[in-house]
Amino acid sequence: MRILGIDPGYGIVGYGLIENDNGKLVPIDYGAVQTPSDVPTADRLIMIEEGITELIRRTTPDEIAVEELFYNTNITTGIKVAQARGVILLSCAKQCKNLFEYTPLQIKSTVTGNGTANKTQVQFMVRALLKLKNTPKPDDAADALAAAICHALSANGVKRGLK
Amino acid sequence: MRILGIDPGYGIVGYGLIENDNGKLVPIDYGAVQTPSDVPTADRLIMIEEGITELIRRTTPDEIAVEELFYNTNITTGIKVAQARGVILLSCAKQCKNLFEYTPLQIKSTVTGNGTANKTQVQFMVRALLKLKNTPKPDDAADALAAAICHALSANGVKRGLK
Repeated sequence: MRILGIDPGYGIVGYGLIENDNGKLVPIDYGAVQTPSDVPTADRLIMIEEGITELIRRTTPDEIAVEELFYNTNITTGIKVAQARGVILLSCAKQCKNLFEYTPLQIKSTVTGNGTANKTQVQFMVRALLKLKNTPKPDDAADALAAAICHALSANGVKRGLK
Repeated sequence: MRILGIDPGYGIVGYGLIENDNGKLVPIDYGAVQTPSDVPTADRLIMIEEGITELIRRTTPDEIAVEELFYNTNITTGIKVAQARGVILLSCAKQCKNLFEYTPLQIKSTVTGNGTANKTQVQFMVRALLKLKNTPKPDDAADALAAAICHALSANGVKRGLK
């Protein structure tokens, strides 16, 4: 079972692919789809769609776990990221029927046992669970792997699907 | 010159097509692309993409004017609408190079002369400028026509383009 985790973003969309081999989690690939800040919004959205579409074609995941948005007070950034996330969900749904969504709280809680874990703690557990020597970079890729791990460990959890 | 105005939404995406015949504005078509609330998010995003793509194919606009989002305090609704708007921008940009964005303030100000005009005032001016007997329904279609009118009347304004 191949699980693709995605950490939505506008400038950086993190991704992480793992193989869940009967509970043994093996990292396959991780990285980020990036869009330059000097490119117009609509063109960046096209780049994100093309990047995600190509990523799914290349990695052929069985299931995809996408992190939900957490909103702080910066509504301007929030709109941009939400617009990008819409394009990401669209691109995933068009290519993979098994799409799941997890909140940041669910991911932290499942991966570290603590819903208020900080970034360093999440990265530590991602490294430990996937037996990686180094913390995956960029941070968005580590977050995406955490989403994939969360999904793998949530076998008995609620299938949130395309809610 | 055919101008397609779009009022972004999640459940209802309003659209309005006008012809700008040397300053004479003629309504051609208006309506809405709708998605049912009992359908999962990602599937609704696919419906929006297909609806907008079909709309542009059918109406063959020369230029498209999309309203920007105005945020009130309902952040949950805001995320859903922003995700939908991302898909709308993507669909427009893939089919039409001349894409413009206008804030609600710009649209109200250009169409009514008053940036704080209410919905009834905007609808009144849309009806008057397009010589329509009745106010276009749903409201989202009237808002979309207002965006198209705003673009037509902004000939000397700033080309915002794909910012």
